[in-house]
Amino acid sequence: MRYSELFIPTLRELPAEAEVVSHQLMLRAGMIRRLTAGVYSLLPLGYRVIKKIEAIVREEMDRSGAQEVFLPALNPAELWMESGRWHVYGKELFRLRDRLDREYCLGPTHEEVVTDIVRKDIRSYRDLPLNLYQIQTKFRDEIRPRFGVMRGREFLMKDAYSFDVDDQAADVSYRKMYDAYVRIFRRCGLKFVAVEAESGPIGGSFSHEFMVLADTGEDEVVICPKCGYASNVEKARFAVEETGSDDDATEPLEKVLTVDLRTIEEVSSFLGCEERRLVKTMIYLADGKPVAALVRGDHRVNENKLKEHLSCEVIELAGEEIILRETGAPEGFSGPMGVDHLPVIADWALRGMKNMVVGANEEHYHLTGVNLGRDFSPTSFADIRMVERGDRCPQCGGELEFCRGIEVGHVFKLGTKYSKGLGATYLDVDGAVRYIVMGSYGIGLARTAAAAIEQNHDADGIIWPMPLAPFQVLLLPVNMNDPVVRQAAEELYQQLEEGGVEVLLDDRDVRPGVKFKDGDLLGIPLRVTVGSRYKERGVVEIRTRADRHVERVAKDGVLAMVRRMIRQLTGQAQGE
Amino acid sequence: MRYSELFIPTLRELPAEAEVVSHQLMLRAGMIRRLTAGVYSLLPLGYRVIKKIEAIVREEMDRSGAQEVFLPALNPAELWMESGRWHVYGKELFRLRDRLDREYCLGPTHEEVVTDIVRKDIRSYRDLPLNLYQIQTKFRDEIRPRFGVMRGREFLMKDAYSFDVDDQAADVSYRKMYDAYVRIFRRCGLKFVAVEAESGPIGGSFSHEFMVLADTGEDEVVICPKCGYASNVEKARFAVEETGSDDDATEPLEKVLTVDLRTIEEVSSFLGCEERRLVKTMIYLADGKPVAALVRGDHRVNENKLKEHLSCEVIELAGEEIILRETGAPEGFSGPMGVDHLPVIADWALRGMKNMVVGANEEHYHLTGVNLGRDFSPTSFADIRMVERGDRCPQCGGELEFCRGIEVGHVFKLGTKYSKGLGATYLDVDGAVRYIVMGSYGIGLARTAAAAIEQNHDADGIIWPMPLAPFQVLLLPVNMNDPVVRQAAEELYQQLEEGGVEVLLDDRDVRPGVKFKDGDLLGIPLRVTVGSRYKERGVVEIRTRADRHVERVAKDGVLAMVRRMIRQLTGQAQGE
Repeated sequence: MRYSELFIPTLRELPAEAEVVSHQLMLRAGMIRRLTAGVYSLLPLGYRVIKKIEAIVREEMDRSGAQEVFLPALNPAELWMESGRWHVYGKELFRLRDRLDREYCLGPTHEEVVTDIVRKDIRSYRDLPLNLYQIQTKFRDEIRPRFGVMRGREFLMKDAYSFDVDDQAADVSYRKMYDAYVRIFRRCGLKFVAVEAESGPIGGSFSHEFMVLADTGEDEVVICPKCGYASNVEKARFAVEETGSDDDATEPLEKVLTVDLRTIEEVSSFLGCEERRLVKTMIYLADGKPVAALVRGDHRVNENKLKEHLSCEVIELAGEEIILRETGAPEGFSGPMGVDHLPVIADWALRGMKNMVVGANEEHYHLTGVNLGRDFSPTSFADIRMVERGDRCPQCGGELEFCRGIEVGHVFKLGTKYSKGLGATYLDVDGAVRYIVMGSYGIGLARTAAAAIEQNHDADGIIWPMPLAPFQVLLLPVNMNDPVVRQAAEELYQQLEEGGVEVLLDDRDVRPGVKFKDGDLLGIPLRVTVGSRYKERGVVEIRTRADRHVERVAKDGVLAMVRRMIRQLTGQAQGE
Repeated sequence: MRYSELFIPTLRELPAEAEVVSHQLMLRAGMIRRLTAGVYSLLPLGYRVIKKIEAIVREEMDRSGAQEVFLPALNPAELWMESGRWHVYGKELFRLRDRLDREYCLGPTHEEVVTDIVRKDIRSYRDLPLNLYQIQTKFRDEIRPRFGVMRGREFLMKDAYSFDVDDQAADVSYRKMYDAYVRIFRRCGLKFVAVEAESGPIGGSFSHEFMVLADTGEDEVVICPKCGYASNVEKARFAVEETGSDDDATEPLEKVLTVDLRTIEEVSSFLGCEERRLVKTMIYLADGKPVAALVRGDHRVNENKLKEHLSCEVIELAGEEIILRETGAPEGFSGPMGVDHLPVIADWALRGMKNMVVGANEEHYHLTGVNLGRDFSPTSFADIRMVERGDRCPQCGGELEFCRGIEVGHVFKLGTKYSKGLGATYLDVDGAVRYIVMGSYGIGLARTAAAAIEQNHDADGIIWPMPLAPFQVLLLPVNMNDPVVRQAAEELYQQLEEGGVEVLLDDRDVRPGVKFKDGDLLGIPLRVTVGSRYKERGVVEIRTRADRHVERVAKDGVLAMVRRMIRQLTGQAQGE
């Protein structure tokens, strides 16, 4: 296509509204424009990238056996009341009324709608398995929309829903989606990991997040470079180690005055001992009932793990009043001794510790020389702490690395949450009525484009991985008013177009500097320059955007060279 | 694909909710399901058809030079207030508030959003012309959603917006879209006409509707089979004829008692004269000001034409009170004599009439022997009546035909309505600020699919035009449990798939009758049956869905024959 005919409103200045680099560059490269908070229009260049992602997603979904549908955004309130989410979803749900005052929400996800279809039209085990997917607009009234299309309030999503006869079959469907997602992000040319994850408000038994790795990512993940284990920090497991002790003997229990010293830091520095000698006692409410959670002084409680261990729905820190009532002391002085009326959950790391320091359950006092067995015994031991730097892989013992990522995909095993809520059943081989077992699978399309930019850019602009680039080649005649240059450019343009190369001809009558700057900003992987070298020596320059490697070739060699470089860059991006 | 793996929930019974045939068949063929009033999910088979239409639309839009974008459904209220449509659009606009109580509507069309982009990013005449299009979901809270996807409240639409420097350039853009639409509907394989139309609430100076012809269509259109002139009845022009008269002389004016006779029928039958001898005098309010409109007794006023003639915004019939005030008599007795204080607009047909019968502007009286010039002179003559059967073509004089159609596309020349409202300007060659001249162009995608069914079906089901068919071939092995039949079917399936034919293999273990019935219902244009004839004589049957023509060929000849028939049916549908 011709640059002069395309609507690519590039910006010179850094847009004030944009905080992160992908947002800045998408605005500057004329890919998107903001309509209102968290709501963006995709302009021609931006939509070209989305369509590339869409095509890859669609091919891999079809290949996995999923079938494409298109579900409405307007969802009737009754359906969401049936599933129970009308009230749970809170303010994130956009709600509206029609002219007859009937209530609707704008679908933030489509479990309800798709389950409604399935419960009406699926009868028998013979109709299963089934996987329905769509590429469609979602609406979520985010409390803090930000980072452009990264966290928008209206966004394009590929969502898929699997329906199976039982758990085992559902695992097969889950695995198929997992594998399709691996193929999708690999084909997109992105560096990513699939991490074990919490399933969050969508619910369900287990899930994986697909994270595009980028230093600017919102999420922290741990990966084991040795065996490939990867996890969201929220969910990360590690090789459990007991702390052990250098002390030979157990010291006697002592009560020490620690006036107004509440934090681990304050107490350890006052006592002149390492933080790891202390034990934090946190009082939580598990579904409203108080429990005590013990972790080492230098560790942090992982509330998700604690919740899972206690098999409860809601876990939250207890307030001042409850702490006082349950322990007899204000916050900062809780300890495991004298709270036998509470379940006491101790982290594995406490095993083998000797002579611990704990709160005395009495204001301004701590206890030292506290020992397991002699002084207290927890109700149970469990892994209830967050992963920390230095922890080792739960699978192979290798040292875990921390890095940052951007969530672009999420696969959930839902189980029977929605089929029970909405009554989606089938008749099994024996004619018995059974609940359908579900899974749900999402990919944010514009988010993937933004993540690709976070991962691939430099000071001058975007560096598209070849598979996502809006054009493969930018053909840049330095001066269209020079008849020799112009003719060569037009000939090359025709050759490349006819050769099936996606080429953008910068035919604008602007200064060369503007063309070079815009070209780097747009991030098209290959640039073919027709300039003075062509006039002098008949040579055209082909430059890679990523490593600025320059090849000089005669005009007739351009198509072949470009094709080879496209193959090469595609292969590189896809990790071949 | 294999039928057993596809989600095609066909229905035997006529769905109670469906009034029109396309709605019934789309439900019965498992193409769509209703979520709530006027809101439908597209199931796999339905979405396959939509994607075929989408692909044709996209190709032709791209070919016309339009650029694809994707605009948000959530539109901020302020933007619609700027254009003035927030209040004008009324209840058809879905409105909602976000968590911060800011107001939005769900876009029923996107003039505001696209003009907002253009006013911010278009600076100069060099940036024009520009045409931006999208394929996206629209929301309209129809007072009476009905006919399935034909008149839904949420629906997929291709909308395009052109931006030009002046009126002449805008006409070129309009023509490009018009031509693209002709190519689109021709390629879809539909019989259609493009008619002159009213521009309705979108506003603008002129427009054409693209109508798929079907006896069940909602709209009435007139076409001239001789020269191709076509128009919506609301807008239809015709060869204007003066009525002429058989009377030699002008009769004297007489006042006759017509107690309680108000209608043309009553008066003509009482007086024993033809209805065409009478003149109807209708009192209208044109932007609130009373006017009298005169048409022949057997004609009807065309309010759109009257409105255009008077260059007013709103035209409406005057109520009892105003009629009494302006004419001195109640409704039914109005006439052109003695209302000189009003503009009197007479239809062209009154020219040449002699000895008319009109209301006397006095209760219970009419006048006879009324003559132009002698008794009254209208303020002006104009074409202000509806087209009637027997009228002749305004272009060639041929007899106009009336037929019914379904509106599937609409092109509007908007002029500067939105660019003025929203301040979308550019600098012309001389550096002067000028308003951008716009056009807007829409196609309803699901509506096109429904219209195709209205045009192409029989008692057994759908008959898809080849270009829109969800599959080109239905491969129907009569009994998959018969190893000979099964093997032949599997071989044919592979051959056809590898030959690039879109084939649906009905591999279900159900009775042949069910397969044949479902096959006719789905409307796949070609059916390849492998049954007893194959076992006995090695012969396979290829049947066309439309005319039930059967070809018998040996198995090895199937691919070649199928390909030939696909080409032939495609050509036929596309009118080649």
